[in-house]
Amino acid sequence: MPYLALTGGVGGAKLALGLSRLLSPDALRIVANTADDFVHLGLNISPDLDTVMYTLADISNKDLGWGLAEESWQFMEAMERLGGETWFRLGDRDLATHIYRSHWLAEGKQLDEITEDLCRKLGVRHSLFPMTNDRVSTRVNLKDGGQLSFQHYFVRDRCLPEVSGFEFAEIERAKASRPFLEALEEVTGAIIICPSNPFVSVAPLLQLPGVVERIRQSDIPVVAVSPIVGGQAIKGPAAKMMAELGMPRTALAVAAHYADCYGVRHQGGLFTHFVMDQQDIAQEAAVRQLGFKTRVTQTIMQTLEDRVELARQVLAFVD
Amino acid sequence: MPYLALTGGVGGAKLALGLSRLLSPDALRIVANTADDFVHLGLNISPDLDTVMYTLADISNKDLGWGLAEESWQFMEAMERLGGETWFRLGDRDLATHIYRSHWLAEGKQLDEITEDLCRKLGVRHSLFPMTNDRVSTRVNLKDGGQLSFQHYFVRDRCLPEVSGFEFAEIERAKASRPFLEALEEVTGAIIICPSNPFVSVAPLLQLPGVVERIRQSDIPVVAVSPIVGGQAIKGPAAKMMAELGMPRTALAVAAHYADCYGVRHQGGLFTHFVMDQQDIAQEAAVRQLGFKTRVTQTIMQTLEDRVELARQVLAFVD
Repeated sequence: MPYLALTGGVGGAKLALGLSRLLSPDALRIVANTADDFVHLGLNISPDLDTVMYTLADISNKDLGWGLAEESWQFMEAMERLGGETWFRLGDRDLATHIYRSHWLAEGKQLDEITEDLCRKLGVRHSLFPMTNDRVSTRVNLKDGGQLSFQHYFVRDRCLPEVSGFEFAEIERAKASRPFLEALEEVTGAIIICPSNPFVSVAPLLQLPGVVERIRQSDIPVVAVSPIVGGQAIKGPAAKMMAELGMPRTALAVAAHYADCYGVRHQGGLFTHFVMDQQDIAQEAAVRQLGFKTRVTQTIMQTLEDRVELARQVLAFVD
Repeated sequence: MPYLALTGGVGGAKLALGLSRLLSPDALRIVANTADDFVHLGLNISPDLDTVMYTLADISNKDLGWGLAEESWQFMEAMERLGGETWFRLGDRDLATHIYRSHWLAEGKQLDEITEDLCRKLGVRHSLFPMTNDRVSTRVNLKDGGQLSFQHYFVRDRCLPEVSGFEFAEIERAKASRPFLEALEEVTGAIIICPSNPFVSVAPLLQLPGVVERIRQSDIPVVAVSPIVGGQAIKGPAAKMMAELGMPRTALAVAAHYADCYGVRHQGGLFTHFVMDQQDIAQEAAVRQLGFKTRVTQTIMQTLEDRVELARQVLAFVD
């Protein structure tokens, strides 16, 4: 199994899709962040897993950028009439995923088994799994001293509050899922960190106990793709978070953050390669200075061809 | 509070609606059977409560005869793709009710509180409540020696298996809900047994510990409306059940069953009045022989006017 991709939601899912078009199911596995998972209206919701799953199944909603294609909102309308919470939009078709998952979790199945089952039913050929079957919950620390659960911050409050940091509750006690551990064991080509949010998507994946140690022991290349292009996040609050955390909003700062937190390989750390956009070519030398091998390319993925092309570049880079 | 109506689903809900058009919220309360309630796909479903609630709120689906008006089925379609159970049809709008209820039950609220809340949100002015907050489960004993849960019998197997009897699991330990007990305390006019299935809708309502005793002590008239007209049940399997249980499929047999199980008042039992359809006028004398006061009228409720007119007849009869 040459490649393992680590991903959050929308941005990472795009590269995962590109990779899946180039690599057979034998050659690629994908692990998704689950620290955004939460229970809402009694339903177990795994936003990142579902985004990647729907993307790989080619049933994602391209207009909305999240959720399912051909979605309808009758449930939400009825829930609104009942005065229930409607800030997290649950489509009628999407609900089947959450109810199915919640039902089987309540029956004692594990999230990785249920994810495998859902993927099979939806025609996803590549192996996609959660980073852990245990509950890990991202908490967003705010500048005003408060704390929000991730989805309250991300969806309900539309990332408006200023952040001061993040915690992943229960992560010390969480165990990487069996398929994640197996993938870490069996990967021979490279580990690909998709262009996901470094603070809330990539961090929990890497902070799960034992994950970084296993990767370092394996001596497999670890390539990260910058989610920041030209000072902006293509999707999501990464750039806004960087500003609030006192970091420059640059690809270089992402690389520096990764080097700070996890180290670069030739100094005993995790990372080996860094892919950044051609808009940020002026920062390439500085990223190299940090100890990364670098590749500058087109990283904005608007079309399917863009996704496949970036995947091709990443694979060529680490090979 | 002059009147208390006891009802199951569709048939009973029609008379409850008729009564609600004649009586103010101060003058009528309605208690529904909950022995058909079940957990499906992890959701707490109360079919009779919902049928009555939707009927009183004038949002019931008149084409289907169950569920909500303007319903859609995107959830079901998506669930089918996932290979989940689809024999119990859950509409997209209807799901809001079940998810809302399940969520609040899981949060520790009681079914009667949640029902009151749902009714308020949906604009139901009359007090509607469950017979109990405890779980009671109808089990259908089959002639072939097997047993089915009620919804498996009723919905999944479309009442095809031949029945030999019914059990209401846990009913001995169930407590009548607070609003049901209060209504039994405060009723001054009559208790109206709606034209619901005597075996699976009315029986659990009356077999709840203490209910029959309280009614007998109160000396309030108890009027039953026959669900059997001209040898047929207007809706549901009552007539088929009677045949399988070795009873004639007649209004008289319904009256005889009620007299057998609960007695007539002047012999120390429960029932005082019986309303039967004009098609069954030949049986009136025999019903009277059993000890009931009788009223023969048009009991088939096709239009709203029919529902109101039957309600008017029932009220005039017991006054």
